[in-house]
Amino acid sequence: MLTKRIKRLSPYVPGEQPQDRSYIKLNTNENPYPPTPLIEPFLKSFEIERLRRYPDPLFGTLRKAISKRFNIDISQVFVGNGSDEVLAFAFYAFFDSARGKLIFPEFSYSFYPVYCDFYGIEYRKIPLNENFTIDIDDYLDEESSCGIVFPNPNAPTGILLPLEKVTALMERYPEDRVVIIDEAYVDFGGESAISLIGRFKNLLIIRTFSKSMSLAALRLGFAMGDEGLVNALFAVKDSFNSYPADLIAQKIGEIAINDTSYYHSITQKIIKSREFLSKALEDLGWRVLPSNANFIFAGKKGLKGESIYKRLKEEGILVRHFNTEGIENFVRITIGTDEEIKTLIASIQRLF
Amino acid sequence: MLTKRIKRLSPYVPGEQPQDRSYIKLNTNENPYPPTPLIEPFLKSFEIERLRRYPDPLFGTLRKAISKRFNIDISQVFVGNGSDEVLAFAFYAFFDSARGKLIFPEFSYSFYPVYCDFYGIEYRKIPLNENFTIDIDDYLDEESSCGIVFPNPNAPTGILLPLEKVTALMERYPEDRVVIIDEAYVDFGGESAISLIGRFKNLLIIRTFSKSMSLAALRLGFAMGDEGLVNALFAVKDSFNSYPADLIAQKIGEIAINDTSYYHSITQKIIKSREFLSKALEDLGWRVLPSNANFIFAGKKGLKGESIYKRLKEEGILVRHFNTEGIENFVRITIGTDEEIKTLIASIQRLF
Repeated sequence: MLTKRIKRLSPYVPGEQPQDRSYIKLNTNENPYPPTPLIEPFLKSFEIERLRRYPDPLFGTLRKAISKRFNIDISQVFVGNGSDEVLAFAFYAFFDSARGKLIFPEFSYSFYPVYCDFYGIEYRKIPLNENFTIDIDDYLDEESSCGIVFPNPNAPTGILLPLEKVTALMERYPEDRVVIIDEAYVDFGGESAISLIGRFKNLLIIRTFSKSMSLAALRLGFAMGDEGLVNALFAVKDSFNSYPADLIAQKIGEIAINDTSYYHSITQKIIKSREFLSKALEDLGWRVLPSNANFIFAGKKGLKGESIYKRLKEEGILVRHFNTEGIENFVRITIGTDEEIKTLIASIQRLF
Repeated sequence: MLTKRIKRLSPYVPGEQPQDRSYIKLNTNENPYPPTPLIEPFLKSFEIERLRRYPDPLFGTLRKAISKRFNIDISQVFVGNGSDEVLAFAFYAFFDSARGKLIFPEFSYSFYPVYCDFYGIEYRKIPLNENFTIDIDDYLDEESSCGIVFPNPNAPTGILLPLEKVTALMERYPEDRVVIIDEAYVDFGGESAISLIGRFKNLLIIRTFSKSMSLAALRLGFAMGDEGLVNALFAVKDSFNSYPADLIAQKIGEIAINDTSYYHSITQKIIKSREFLSKALEDLGWRVLPSNANFIFAGKKGLKGESIYKRLKEEGILVRHFNTEGIENFVRITIGTDEEIKTLIASIQRLF
């Protein structure tokens, strides 16, 4: 009854989403603070009669707001149902293993190989340096690649590839192959590559409203890049689902993208908490990778990530571990509120 | 820069969605009445803090509500970002031209061939009878088909295939190939095939919240069928986008699916208006196909659909026409409010 296609899938397993609220939830990189309070009056006065009509399939006012915020042209902006959907469209449009394998870091967003299996794209994982950083030379040696994708800062390590290295990569990589930089976490102290968009027609930057904007429930993501790439994403979208972003999400996205001062303040709080947590764990003898994201990747000698995860879960704290060789001794901990972090540190101190 | 894949696409062109409100909009089968008023108190009291977390990737409470409403098991329900996305997932999961071509009616939802191009599925369009009805024998002669999809009632004709014929089709079609019945318009006087789900493991029924539920802006659709088919849809979803339906949409969907009495009343109004409009046009010498949907397919001898469309647009009324041989002399008119319909009839009387 099923297709051959479906038999090659190995679906992504998202972090646990327990539907009760009893956990301190530090496992899926959600924002511990609410989104901009300006959303509340919008919802309170929303005329439900508007729900009867289809939303704008071109996401006009939201794309306009995004383009103004980042000082690019509206023709350089695409919107989708979460950055996962934008990635799924982009893999379809740009990565074709007839021209070589797609390459991405060995430890990286684990949805990338899933998309590859979905479309039958061959890929090769490039090992990280010993200190978990990316060496751009490793991406240039691979002459036969059809494209590159990586998160910056990387996940689950949290480590940033500095803009000068991103620039060097773009300068040296073939200009007829697309490089996707997944900037889901860039607002937490990263350096965006947006300034390179005009210079490199093969650069696509993908962003999400789920992390720094505290809107994971809404399902909004976007891409920025040359108009040629954006038009290709529209062609894919219009061959799959004409209206992936609903009206309420588009409108809330507009409100959020414009409230820079509120988001600046909660982002600063998260960065402070991250530095506090990193130092506290180091003081307890843990290894903590230098993070520019809203999570840290940390571990302690002699402890498996899985056992840290299990023992913290018993305490009512959810973190994420990966049973993958090379990172099996780490856990990824989302930065929560200061209170949540203090509870976490106390638990860690007592348990390990 | 682009893949070979993307070069084979011929994107779907949705009906015009002018972002101003000046038209009488009878072109995209939207509901002329607002959705259930119970949505308003929900939005007014919604705690925006909930937006920071990912929504339930299993759509638990919404699937439960749907399963109760239709008296099936929750394991027989799948949810997606509009029925277009559910269809896109289903084509991936079930239709494989290694086993034959996908077959569907010649005049039908024009997204079906677009999905086929998206995945590289071969298809064959089956002609309708002279009176635009479906002859199920035509779908059984085709021994080499890998599956069937059709809307019931069909679009853009509005004509229903009676349940006894659907049953006969299911009885005679190979049980290892999937039949998708797209019941987007079934609430407007059609007969659902839900009662057949337990009997035929290869039957998938797809529904939308966009038409009878008056929630096109929300992007919610669902599928009902055997647990094996539903599990396959989840595998596809989890290889593409883990969270396609946002929290607010899931919650509003739940409210809407439970308010059967409100929706019964607006559906009855639409059916009455449809009968009124059909009779009025027939009295003016038009041919109107017998519709069980929230639109009619109608034309007048000697008039091209395109010219009807153009002249009505000048009057501020949008309808939809198709430049496709065999239906080029028709327009599809969505049933609006009684006032809108009276304006339409007056314009038609004056213009043609």
